[in-house]
Amino acid sequence: MAHVDLNSDMGEGFGPWRMGDDAALLDIVTSANIACGFHAGDPDVMAATMARAVRNGVGIGAHPGFADLAGFGRREIDLPPATLAHLIQYQVGAAQAMARAAGGEVRHLKLHGALANMASRDGEMARRCFDAALAVAPDLILVVLAATPIQEAAEALGARFACEVFADRGYEDDATLVRRGTPGAMITDADAAAERMSEMVRDGVIVTASGKRIETRIDTICLHGDEPSAVAAARTLRDRLEADGVEIRTFG
Amino acid sequence: MAHVDLNSDMGEGFGPWRMGDDAALLDIVTSANIACGFHAGDPDVMAATMARAVRNGVGIGAHPGFADLAGFGRREIDLPPATLAHLIQYQVGAAQAMARAAGGEVRHLKLHGALANMASRDGEMARRCFDAALAVAPDLILVVLAATPIQEAAEALGARFACEVFADRGYEDDATLVRRGTPGAMITDADAAAERMSEMVRDGVIVTASGKRIETRIDTICLHGDEPSAVAAARTLRDRLEADGVEIRTFG
Amino acid sequence: MAHVDLNSDMGEGFGPWRMGDDAALLDIVTSANIACGFHAGDPDVMAATMARAVRNGVGIGAHPGFADLAGFGRREIDLPPATLAHLIQYQVGAAQAMARAAGGEVRHLKLHGALANMASRDGEMARRCFDAALAVAPDLILVVLAATPIQEAAEALGARFACEVFADRGYEDDATLVRRGTPGAMITDADAAAERMSEMVRDGVIVTASGKRIETRIDTICLHGDEPSAVAAARTLRDRLEADGVEIRTFG
Amino acid sequence: MAHVDLNSDMGEGFGPWRMGDDAALLDIVTSANIACGFHAGDPDVMAATMARAVRNGVGIGAHPGFADLAGFGRREIDLPPATLAHLIQYQVGAAQAMARAAGGEVRHLKLHGALANMASRDGEMARRCFDAALAVAPDLILVVLAATPIQEAAEALGARFACEVFADRGYEDDATLVRRGTPGAMITDADAAAERMSEMVRDGVIVTASGKRIETRIDTICLHGDEPSAVAAARTLRDRLEADGVEIRTFG
Repeated sequence: MAHVDLNSDMGEGFGPWRMGDDAALLDIVTSANIACGFHAGDPDVMAATMARAVRNGVGIGAHPGFADLAGFGRREIDLPPATLAHLIQYQVGAAQAMARAAGGEVRHLKLHGALANMASRDGEMARRCFDAALAVAPDLILVVLAATPIQEAAEALGARFACEVFADRGYEDDATLVRRGTPGAMITDADAAAERMSEMVRDGVIVTASGKRIETRIDTICLHGDEPSAVAAARTLRDRLEADGVEIRTFG
Repeated sequence: MAHVDLNSDMGEGFGPWRMGDDAALLDIVTSANIACGFHAGDPDVMAATMARAVRNGVGIGAHPGFADLAGFGRREIDLPPATLAHLIQYQVGAAQAMARAAGGEVRHLKLHGALANMASRDGEMARRCFDAALAVAPDLILVVLAATPIQEAAEALGARFACEVFADRGYEDDATLVRRGTPGAMITDADAAAERMSEMVRDGVIVTASGKRIETRIDTICLHGDEPSAVAAARTLRDRLEADGVEIRTFG
Repeated sequence: MAHVDLNSDMGEGFGPWRMGDDAALLDIVTSANIACGFHAGDPDVMAATMARAVRNGVGIGAHPGFADLAGFGRREIDLPPATLAHLIQYQVGAAQAMARAAGGEVRHLKLHGALANMASRDGEMARRCFDAALAVAPDLILVVLAATPIQEAAEALGARFACEVFADRGYEDDATLVRRGTPGAMITDADAAAERMSEMVRDGVIVTASGKRIETRIDTICLHGDEPSAVAAARTLRDRLEADGVEIRTFG
Repeated sequence: MAHVDLNSDMGEGFGPWRMGDDAALLDIVTSANIACGFHAGDPDVMAATMARAVRNGVGIGAHPGFADLAGFGRREIDLPPATLAHLIQYQVGAAQAMARAAGGEVRHLKLHGALANMASRDGEMARRCFDAALAVAPDLILVVLAATPIQEAAEALGARFACEVFADRGYEDDATLVRRGTPGAMITDADAAAERMSEMVRDGVIVTASGKRIETRIDTICLHGDEPSAVAAARTLRDRLEADGVEIRTFG
């Protein structure tokens, strides 16, 4: 029987500010990528998010980003390799402690925002980021873009990893995402997105915008949580997958 | 044979700024209280300080403080109990990760600045801080003011702890420190400070400003590292202790 | 004809986060207290808020707070007097520049959160805050709690000031606010709040929870903007005042 | 009689940390580029630095940088144009207020670190930065690299500007600086640097590493203040210029 994990970014509030409906999403997803305080999240937000994830049996992931609250970690910053490694290790360690205090543990790692974008273009940087995290948490499952060099970087490290596809993003024929702002970048119809995902998961393929089918392992589907319609789309996707006989469970 | 640990605050730089001569102090002390990024320290500074501590066989301590770089964690901030707990857990976790990446581990906890001052006046707050840290790192050795209610708070928790005295501070007859700015608060003569410490360690007493002797367990002596004369005073103290037959080694 | 100003806190987003419905409130109020980047607000948020205030003819106020994003400036921090003065001057200057760039100017000053609370208990601190701001912007109108020592502090400085009452807060018989969490602290019924305000403005009195009437000058009414019901309550208040023949216009 | 200004970066401490010997440099230079709190400097440091500058008759400059304390504003961050403009306006306004409170005024603008580097490669970005600052402070004197497109950008805006050369940096034949890490990038001998500067100022030329002479207007010489030898080198330069009959005075 086919199975897949659903993941979403979480804990993206800070101080008095909230973002997204974490409570609703934590009833739908099976893995939560929790901001670690540098681009979003603070120790209180992390604690609350992790407590709820533990209660719901949702897998906890560290979701480190650049130290850039004002830019939400979406601005590219060119850091020396050692600084990049320390940035990730610090955040992973903080997440581990908050998870432990909540009665859980950090199971996976997913890079955030500009950090993820830069790593997806630069295999050597991806490897350094993963290496740094594994030095702190050797059992971490690395979330990687399915069928890309990032997947290869994780394989080359001998690490555990989970291959990810995006519920609402179009794909190019080389398995990269259609660039935002380009026609076909976003799949805004929730039913169409759900149908496409169900096909991809059951067949083990990425279906590109041109109709090409790229065989790949698929372990997890990324849902976006910060749009008002996010929860409804997430629910549509989960219902469709289950109706099509796909079991929803955490990876690893 | 009498023995004692020497501890000092370390890793108090941030970004382009440095504070104190950590390299020299790490040749003298046996425990380092390393800032965790909230009142001072950043991931790079933590990594460098921990690497050197590991190399020198110096015990690594987490030294959490308020999230107040501009105030160096010396301004009192009244936080809700849960926020206080999360603040400490986050920093302890970050320190654990940086220590692990450096090939070491966090052995002890010492509260910083205003956080320490508030806890020293408020046993319930001390207990909450310790509890929070132990939830994340159960084997942590808590550094506590010798012969004060803080020591009792640590004992009541059944935790491992180390009793601390201050090399350069005068004592009141109730074992609290003479308030800064008051006559007798600081012992500025390095030889006098060393002689007093040697007596206190060998006899297991705090000698107060009035000459009273309070029996107590003494596990570690706090040296201050941020004054220009700090390294010389630290060396004087260590030499005197060793000349008097006191072994200098990490506690615990 | 009676007249009064309506003021509300604004521009309390930061980076990716928003708070309150500034656009709707800026159609109702006549003065905006704009966060200056320390407890909330960033240069982009300030620019957008000021541009809209200028467009709507709403008076711009600097709303400085403690440098505490995570605590939204609501945590008391004990600062040395000079540091407090510089904190305010820096924020007022930043606000002046952002206002100038938007084609407007900073007309008034209102202290935020814990800074305001501390100043309301400590007349000397209030005077120092005002003094500091006036050194940078001599024509600033100081918003003060009507019929309190803060009003006296402003008068004693010979400064321009505006006396403020709160639309949704109960009053003690000494003209201070009923403490939050106490019965009568909040007036949650919008119609009742509007009726009370209309009476207070037309009669020039504060009506306390016990029914006592304290004669006072009233220049401006503070509306709270961060609750979901805030905009509707603000509209109810404005409509009621206008129906009762009170003109709504900026103070000063 | 030839004359020139000497400028140096100042006020680059933050909270408990200091950088450079501002007091000594303020006895030598005639213009101070004062950090504005984003990459370095805080309101207290700004106040102290400006007070001393006013006392010494040294011209005050705003020295804005990226909001990146940990990276000291030396990391390139790609900001949207409007965000860049607001970043500069905010800092200029803060500097104006702090200068006013100190009894002075902001006379000039010099971009810091990565912001300056990016603007020096991108004339359009330079123009936007200058435009933003002038919208807030129309009389500002813009410090520009002599004989480069940045000078042209300032001229095209019809703004007041000051052409700058660097005391300790080698020049390429197109008037750009020899890249750091390349032979000839730094002129480490203080006497040689002083002699070269004296020639350049008296003759109105940039002398490049290859010996080429580029005619240019020279209004100010940049001294670096953060090296231990900085003060001595600055004194050597000033003495040599005065011995050669060059008057040292503020530009504009």
